[in-house]
Amino acid sequence: MYIAVDAMGTDTYPKNDIAGGILASKEFNDTIVFVGDETVIKSELSKHDISACKIEILHAPEHISMNDKPADVLNSKQSSSIHVGLGAVKNGDVEAFVTMGNTGAAHAVATLKTVKRIRGVKRPVLTAIFAVNDHPMIFLDVGANADSKAEWMQQFAVMGSIYAERVLKYQTPKVAMLSNGEEDTKGNALIKDTATLLNNTQLNFIGNIEPNDLMTSKADVILMDGFVGNIVLKMFEATSRYMANLIRDELRSDILSSIGGLLARPAFNRIRQKVDTSEIGGAPLLGVNGILIIGHGQNSPIGIKNAIRQAHTAVESGVIQAISTSLADLSKSKEVK
Amino acid sequence: MYIAVDAMGTDTYPKNDIAGGILASKEFNDTIVFVGDETVIKSELSKHDISACKIEILHAPEHISMNDKPADVLNSKQSSSIHVGLGAVKNGDVEAFVTMGNTGAAHAVATLKTVKRIRGVKRPVLTAIFAVNDHPMIFLDVGANADSKAEWMQQFAVMGSIYAERVLKYQTPKVAMLSNGEEDTKGNALIKDTATLLNNTQLNFIGNIEPNDLMTSKADVILMDGFVGNIVLKMFEATSRYMANLIRDELRSDILSSIGGLLARPAFNRIRQKVDTSEIGGAPLLGVNGILIIGHGQNSPIGIKNAIRQAHTAVESGVIQAISTSLADLSKSKEVK
Repeated sequence: MYIAVDAMGTDTYPKNDIAGGILASKEFNDTIVFVGDETVIKSELSKHDISACKIEILHAPEHISMNDKPADVLNSKQSSSIHVGLGAVKNGDVEAFVTMGNTGAAHAVATLKTVKRIRGVKRPVLTAIFAVNDHPMIFLDVGANADSKAEWMQQFAVMGSIYAERVLKYQTPKVAMLSNGEEDTKGNALIKDTATLLNNTQLNFIGNIEPNDLMTSKADVILMDGFVGNIVLKMFEATSRYMANLIRDELRSDILSSIGGLLARPAFNRIRQKVDTSEIGGAPLLGVNGILIIGHGQNSPIGIKNAIRQAHTAVESGVIQAISTSLADLSKSKEVK
Repeated sequence: MYIAVDAMGTDTYPKNDIAGGILASKEFNDTIVFVGDETVIKSELSKHDISACKIEILHAPEHISMNDKPADVLNSKQSSSIHVGLGAVKNGDVEAFVTMGNTGAAHAVATLKTVKRIRGVKRPVLTAIFAVNDHPMIFLDVGANADSKAEWMQQFAVMGSIYAERVLKYQTPKVAMLSNGEEDTKGNALIKDTATLLNNTQLNFIGNIEPNDLMTSKADVILMDGFVGNIVLKMFEATSRYMANLIRDELRSDILSSIGGLLARPAFNRIRQKVDTSEIGGAPLLGVNGILIIGHGQNSPIGIKNAIRQAHTAVESGVIQAISTSLADLSKSKEVK
């Protein structure tokens, strides 16, 4: 399998991007095609022993930074690693593209310039994968569509469920909507309209859940509109960071607590690992006609390797074809009614 | 000043409810009117020295539990402490009502059965007050209206700003909307429409903020629709509880960490105090024609005293009259345009 990996994605590219790609190449026996400035990539590769790896380079001299606006780079920077990597997916030169770079840019270039949407998909959807107590959940939409419609949400649920089944390996993924209460009388109009549609699908839709249920293993696919999803993710990050800072400051503020903090360091390291999302590595943009995994700019090599693993499994398990078939069935079942 | 206090509000009523009322009576020199079952109240009062307090009892034999649905108790349980307490506000027998009981029931009974809306108010709004780094912020709407309109949101902002100025004592409260990005191009349709309206008011509207800004002192009044607001509050609670449980479990899991945890206990107690909301005690239902402060069912006596302090300050500073005048001005300024 040929998997393109953005060599210019992370905040400190190309170090972790290349290291992660090499790890993946060794573990999955895929050909990793690094996309980015050839000189930069070659120089970084020379620091590694890659004699046992299948590695190729796809030259892409331009760089999209985290601060570039998607609208600004859509038609400029056409030889950026994101344009070139996604172009290679579109042309069939590679089977997937993995980037730790600018999410908005990847979303825009995929949807509007390169692979575009799978036939029948109303809107692509950004996802995030979180593991709480070692139980990975796929959250969607986490920001692609600030104003959603029930018909889009229904498609998001179908796509999320397919990904959870084929890549996260849940047999019949439990799909839930995040709402302001568990009862089906709770929710805003969008939630209620979407619930009606979801009840008419083959999905294992278990109803509404509340934020507290995210910390248990109640559901595998968590459906939200993109405005709420974006705020929920940022709320989780902001709250955990706030708590971590509080703990750090208070542990430093008296001598006994400092000693306690030192003794408990292994425990704190385990906590950091549990809250850290880099083990997961990334999450797909679903609904576009190609496998695209997007991860955080601060990812570790292991995180990047795991993002590549997702790409590998998504290709292997035929996620795109399954989405295409399921959405066609969905629209057929509507016509029948 | 006469302030009615629900004696049957907390999860373990009447213990903390009564203790908090007595503390308030001593500190603010108000007459505290305990509302609830007379026998229960008298029996609890007998455990305290109330010789220096001005205390009265308003008999209300029925009890609304946390599990009662607002719709179910609206026309039944008419002699509950919530009905009777709010009835006393409506009749002018007391100047405010403070309850740690069922929020939905208090909202419904206030809006539909007793004090009702201030003239011109489109929808009452539920608020919550959080102090991060000793900076109290008023969040609204935290759940009264799952589907909101920009015109309602504008009124919420006006009411929240008045409360922040008169009760939280900010000179020109900074009003912000919680959104999925800071730029004014970010947000869903409701956020953008509301921003246009807010820019046409006298409010100190500082634009959009993101969840991370909630952990700093960027704004004093945080505007959200009731669906998002409810999820945001629950997300904060769920995440902090999850982190606290992680820490507890990890500190117990090896001997060195356990010792560290014991040594650091004072630090953890300070953290708990900082995250704990019970110091604030409660928050108002704004837009109804009477001061109603609602707090958490697990509040401490000090929290309840502080909720009563808010009621006292709100009455003293003429919050209701100020809302009435400001909303009339708002609708006049619309007619002129």
